[in-house]
Amino acid sequence: MNAWSREGFEAKLRERGRSYHIHHPFNVMLNGGRATPQQIRGWVANRFYYQVSIPIKDAAILANCPDRDVRRGWVQRILDHDGFELGGVKDDGGIEAWLRLAQAVGLSREEVLDQRHLVPAVRFAVDAYVNFARRAPWQEAVCSSLTELFAPEIHRQRLATWPAHYPWIEPEGLQYFRSRVTQAGRDVEQGLAITLDHFTTRPMQERALEVLQFKLDILWAMNDAMALKYGTS
Amino acid sequence: MNAWSREGFEAKLRERGRSYHIHHPFNVMLNGGRATPQQIRGWVANRFYYQVSIPIKDAAILANCPDRDVRRGWVQRILDHDGFELGGVKDDGGIEAWLRLAQAVGLSREEVLDQRHLVPAVRFAVDAYVNFARRAPWQEAVCSSLTELFAPEIHRQRLATWPAHYPWIEPEGLQYFRSRVTQAGRDVEQGLAITLDHFTTRPMQERALEVLQFKLDILWAMNDAMALKYGTS
Repeated sequence: MNAWSREGFEAKLRERGRSYHIHHPFNVMLNGGRATPQQIRGWVANRFYYQVSIPIKDAAILANCPDRDVRRGWVQRILDHDGFELGGVKDDGGIEAWLRLAQAVGLSREEVLDQRHLVPAVRFAVDAYVNFARRAPWQEAVCSSLTELFAPEIHRQRLATWPAHYPWIEPEGLQYFRSRVTQAGRDVEQGLAITLDHFTTRPMQERALEVLQFKLDILWAMNDAMALKYGTS
Repeated sequence: MNAWSREGFEAKLRERGRSYHIHHPFNVMLNGGRATPQQIRGWVANRFYYQVSIPIKDAAILANCPDRDVRRGWVQRILDHDGFELGGVKDDGGIEAWLRLAQAVGLSREEVLDQRHLVPAVRFAVDAYVNFARRAPWQEAVCSSLTELFAPEIHRQRLATWPAHYPWIEPEGLQYFRSRVTQAGRDVEQGLAITLDHFTTRPMQERALEVLQFKLDILWAMNDAMALKYGTS
């Protein structure tokens, strides 16, 4: 079988957006304005485990990547999430922004940080993602990040619907979503370029789709676990 | 057995400086001004493998470290070695500085980058260090970095002796050593604080000494391998 063209391969990757968790009943409920404060808090507290695992996952990719140019781009993700202070430039980072979201929805920092609300199956799904990044060839781990293709849309949806549906949430709490619309768009450029450059035969391209599907399944499974715990109505 | 006091423990760590490779016959020859251009080039080309492995090692530590504050400090080492460009601040990084050193001693970038001069035992020693960082508890991997306690002195020695002994090397080529005097001093503060805070019982303190010795042995073994290949006279 012939390899798909670069454009054809990218289109195949983008098609997988149909299984992005934006379509999961739990997310549809959250962004459709039907969630109770309890359900929103459950989502925010559980999703925090994903947030704190992301820099670990990205460091695992760096630790497997011998290409300095790739590392120079990829390390930005760690800085974005952990925050940094360098030569006068300061950013508190995405994890801190998520903690502010948590406080805006009525959770204490402490109850989020100590993971008391974390549903075991959410932990297992996130850990599966981190473990994949530790062990897979770094190009596959990079490919698994391509759910970022679909992330700006879900963040935009939150920004568009939450203020009207959930006026009890302080608007500054939504800053995380605002930052990620820009960051995810920029991040995906590097991840997509690496993926299109590396997976060039048909079997490799099919492997890339499998890897992306694995990551979509991670996000979907997290939502399944939260739906089971907090309900979807 | 009682734990050593914080000061006593730090003194024990510093005592290990007696097995730092500053005392290795190969280094004594290099810094004593008795090395031929061939020996200096051999050292620069081989040590390059250590330089390119350092960011991988540091990323492995990040990938094992759940403490965001530690990561925020530690990531600086990756930026220092790989270089970065962030919010108008730009640094070409230590790997690039080493390549400039290589050119200053008469090596082409290509012959350094393709590792054609790399002695197998140097590779094995460096890989042992990286593999340790991947698998050890992150506090032990941090502790293994404490050879930085002794690094400013060896860099100062190079800066003090090379220009007189080796006038054929362009002085700008020595910039790597100049940067590391400052960076190693700053880096060791974090590594030392973590080590003194974490290894608090006597068995743990003894383990820390063992870990530091392991790292000293890595550097010593690299010099053994280069001495065998390039000679010490």
